Amino acid sequence: MPIIQSVRWSPGGDALRIVDQRRLPEEYVERDLTTVEEVCDAIRTLAVRGAPAIGVAGAIGLAVVAASIADRPPAEFAERLERAANAIRCARPTAVNLPWAVDRMRARADADSGLAPRAVAEALRAEATAILDEDRAMCRRIGEAGLPLVPDGARVLTHCNAGALATAGIGTALAPVYLAAEAGRRVSVYADETRPLLQGSRLTAWELSRAGIPVTVLTDSMAASLMRGGEVDLVIVGADRIAANGDVANKVGTYALAVVAHHHGIPFYVAAPTSTLDPDAPDGDAIEIEHRPAAEVAVAPAGPLVRVHNPAFDITPADLVTAIVTDAGVSRAPYDFGRRAKEEGLLPSTA
Amino acid sequence: MPIIQSVRWSPGGDALRIVDQRRLPEEYVERDLTTVEEVCDAIRTLAVRGAPAIGVAGAIGLAVVAASIADRPPAEFAERLERAANAIRCARPTAVNLPWAVDRMRARADADSGLAPRAVAEALRAEATAILDEDRAMCRRIGEAGLPLVPDGARVLTHCNAGALATAGIGTALAPVYLAAEAGRRVSVYADETRPLLQGSRLTAWELSRAGIPVTVLTDSMAASLMRGGEVDLVIVGADRIAANGDVANKVGTYALAVVAHHHGIPFYVAAPTSTLDPDAPDGDAIEIEHRPAAEVAVAPAGPLVRVHNPAFDITPADLVTAIVTDAGVSRAPYDFGRRAKEEGLLPSTA
Repeated sequence: MPIIQSVRWSPGGDALRIVDQRRLPEEYVERDLTTVEEVCDAIRTLAVRGAPAIGVAGAIGLAVVAASIADRPPAEFAERLERAANAIRCARPTAVNLPWAVDRMRARADADSGLAPRAVAEALRAEATAILDEDRAMCRRIGEAGLPLVPDGARVLTHCNAGALATAGIGTALAPVYLAAEAGRRVSVYADETRPLLQGSRLTAWELSRAGIPVTVLTDSMAASLMRGGEVDLVIVGADRIAANGDVANKVGTYALAVVAHHHGIPFYVAAPTSTLDPDAPDGDAIEIEHRPAAEVAVAPAGPLVRVHNPAFDITPADLVTAIVTDAGVSRAPYDFGRRAKEEGLLPSTA
Repeated sequence: MPIIQSVRWSPGGDALRIVDQRRLPEEYVERDLTTVEEVCDAIRTLAVRGAPAIGVAGAIGLAVVAASIADRPPAEFAERLERAANAIRCARPTAVNLPWAVDRMRARADADSGLAPRAVAEALRAEATAILDEDRAMCRRIGEAGLPLVPDGARVLTHCNAGALATAGIGTALAPVYLAAEAGRRVSVYADETRPLLQGSRLTAWELSRAGIPVTVLTDSMAASLMRGGEVDLVIVGADRIAANGDVANKVGTYALAVVAHHHGIPFYVAAPTSTLDPDAPDGDAIEIEHRPAAEVAVAPAGPLVRVHNPAFDITPADLVTAIVTDAGVSRAPYDFGRRAKEEGLLPSTA
């Protein structure tokens, strides 16, 4: 079976087609979105999730809206397009990819502002398609760079969902796994369920099995004994942000995995787009961790004596990371993703 | 507020009174059980859980049944008592305490079989009360032995529920915490939620806060970053079985905690009754791990490509255990709980 495409053009090219991730894994529902409200709602309610996927959805969504108003007079077209861009840009606050993609679309519209609305809408369609294609290419390059790390027979453990559902392509952490399978290697995955929101058991298990890759779900606390039993060959996780020194911010639980992998001498890889590298954060201490509502974890109302600790992310220090795989290749310690390295072109940026 | 008593005599002495743990933490419901069916049902459905608590419940339950049939002719009394003992003994297969307690009651009835049913029933009431009192004393001795390990201001991390709800007394892993609070020390607890069955967020958080001890719930995967942040002073967990060399079988996730505690130089203590020591198991490899139904973990039906890994327990090797606290005192590595140590009385057994 093919790898799921979570965000794309509808076949007729007049809508943003998404897989509704709120319904997974119970139901597979595709939605065609054509209005600003529908696009914002899908992003806000996590029907589309994963920073790269959200960026692509915002771009295609804006292009779809532009086409739907291309018969208006130029001034009205420009004004409505601007309102749509603002609305989509703000649908979710955290991911950097969404404002980045919308701003890129906006710059394209500005550059073409002398043209007729129909022509601007066509240009936006082309720009959104470019963003989509670049995201797919980014995933594939990560997969190719990471492919040598996933030998025949590999049993890969992963955390959260950094797969096809989180991008427009074949994912980030899962890209090397998909390409290994494509290359005919036997590969299987252990998917941490990933409390509290269960992206592993809900999403990672679903997309891998749909693509024909065997997957075993376990609670996050079981990974260590699995490693002790010799059942895990390598760990690959994604990243939300990577500091200049290689410290990695990712879904909470990543750090625990890195420690237990280190204890068992198991390679621990991080796979993420170069856009995740943050040269302005010298190390993990510079990365602020979002704390989320107690209700995601609590089973009873918290009281004065019962509190809930619910950070969304944690920091894995670079010395526990065997290698960092990006679309620019594989880096090993000592990591140097600082501004100078970026400026000198040692580390090309895709964004 | 007082520490919860999960298993005891009803005030009138004619029933087994339990706290229904199926309803916690939403509702606090006490039940008075008087028939074999009610007692077996409570054990089978986990209304009573925790090996020591189950043993005490079985003993009191059998005594209650004996009293209710004490007006029957001796032969009928003996026959019905035997049937009740068999039923209660088999209500749950794993815990060793239940058959142990029932067999002890049975031996008492056999010894008194020449007496009138009323006298046998009275003897069984005394025996059940002795079992209850011994369990409470065992908990308190564990607490006293572990008390020096919990200094003023200690922030204790624990996993699963090895507290008052799992025993007839003040628990095993939580006993030193309760006694530290009783001694006026400021102590707070981090409770792993403990997937998949959430005994930590459902039970441990409830019983500690009810006793006035501040508790913070977190997902199992968050303990490592909490330790990295310097928020945890020590870890105390219970044990289901301890091998002669000190390897510990306990709720799955215990091993991961031991590894991350070791990584951060944080003491990792195991507190359990001496009845948990198994001199016949040379090490953890001799302990069979129960695997439980996939449905406890899965969020969607498993298929040929989606499997679930759901061991109930894991093994923590002795070299990661800073000390083992029992009702006989505190042991440190190298551990020797073998038969010879037990026979030579170096390690008294309570059971």
